[in-house]
Amino acid sequence: MIEPVVRDLLARHPAGVPATTRPDGGVRQSVVHFALDGDRLLVSTEPARAKAKDVRRTGRASLCVVGAAPPYPSVTLEGVARIRTAGIGPDTARVWSRIGGQNAGPLSDADLAAMNRVIVEITVERVYGGSYLESTA
Amino acid sequence: MIEPVVRDLLARHPAGVPATTRPDGGVRQSVVHFALDGDRLLVSTEPARAKAKDVRRTGRASLCVVGAAPPYPSVTLEGVARIRTAGIGPDTARVWSRIGGQNAGPLSDADLAAMNRVIVEITVERVYGGSYLESTA
Repeated sequence: MIEPVVRDLLARHPAGVPATTRPDGGVRQSVVHFALDGDRLLVSTEPARAKAKDVRRTGRASLCVVGAAPPYPSVTLEGVARIRTAGIGPDTARVWSRIGGQNAGPLSDADLAAMNRVIVEITVERVYGGSYLESTA
Repeated sequence: MIEPVVRDLLARHPAGVPATTRPDGGVRQSVVHFALDGDRLLVSTEPARAKAKDVRRTGRASLCVVGAAPPYPSVTLEGVARIRTAGIGPDTARVWSRIGGQNAGPLSDADLAAMNRVIVEITVERVYGGSYLESTA
């Protein structure tokens, strides 16, 4: 369902704009590093962050990814979302590897809990608004 | 209310990610060129676009702007939004000047109506999530 040209864009751009719905019905946006694994979008955050609370409450999130230069290739992905705290070492390593720097291998859930990190996992159900996507192959 | 460091980022990055609320309560995101004039964010679009319909229905929108390179400076602005069709030549020219290319001066409302263009105007009420903002001065 996630086409190769979309995967190419996401592979090249490690930062994206997640959006969630606030308690008052308004929209909340921010910027995060993310990883894509299969049809799962992964974000590492803190459990008390507003976006984590939105996900816990609404069970949904979207992510818009934009290329760095004109004509600004872009796409938005969305789906059901949840907060995970168990077995999150490998997924956290996937996200952190996109930030750069060293990659010391997956941490334990206990270590990540001590660091106050959780995973926001979006299972992509819909991909829309693809613009100026092109394969690098 | 919009600080100079925020204005600097917006001046350097002509594309942003608007978010609106869908009829079903979900979030809609896309990518647009925009201009900032005072405390007004301006986007040129077509009246039948989904985001225009969302604005007409909800009267609100937000825009997240992200720098092109790590550490990805970013900020989100939001506020009341409306669709304008009258006196939009100068604002449309402001947006188009950010896309590049020639700048032939403001078109008339009749010309823009024939081109099926309207202005989405967001009057910024809140600025949040500023990250890695720094002055270029």
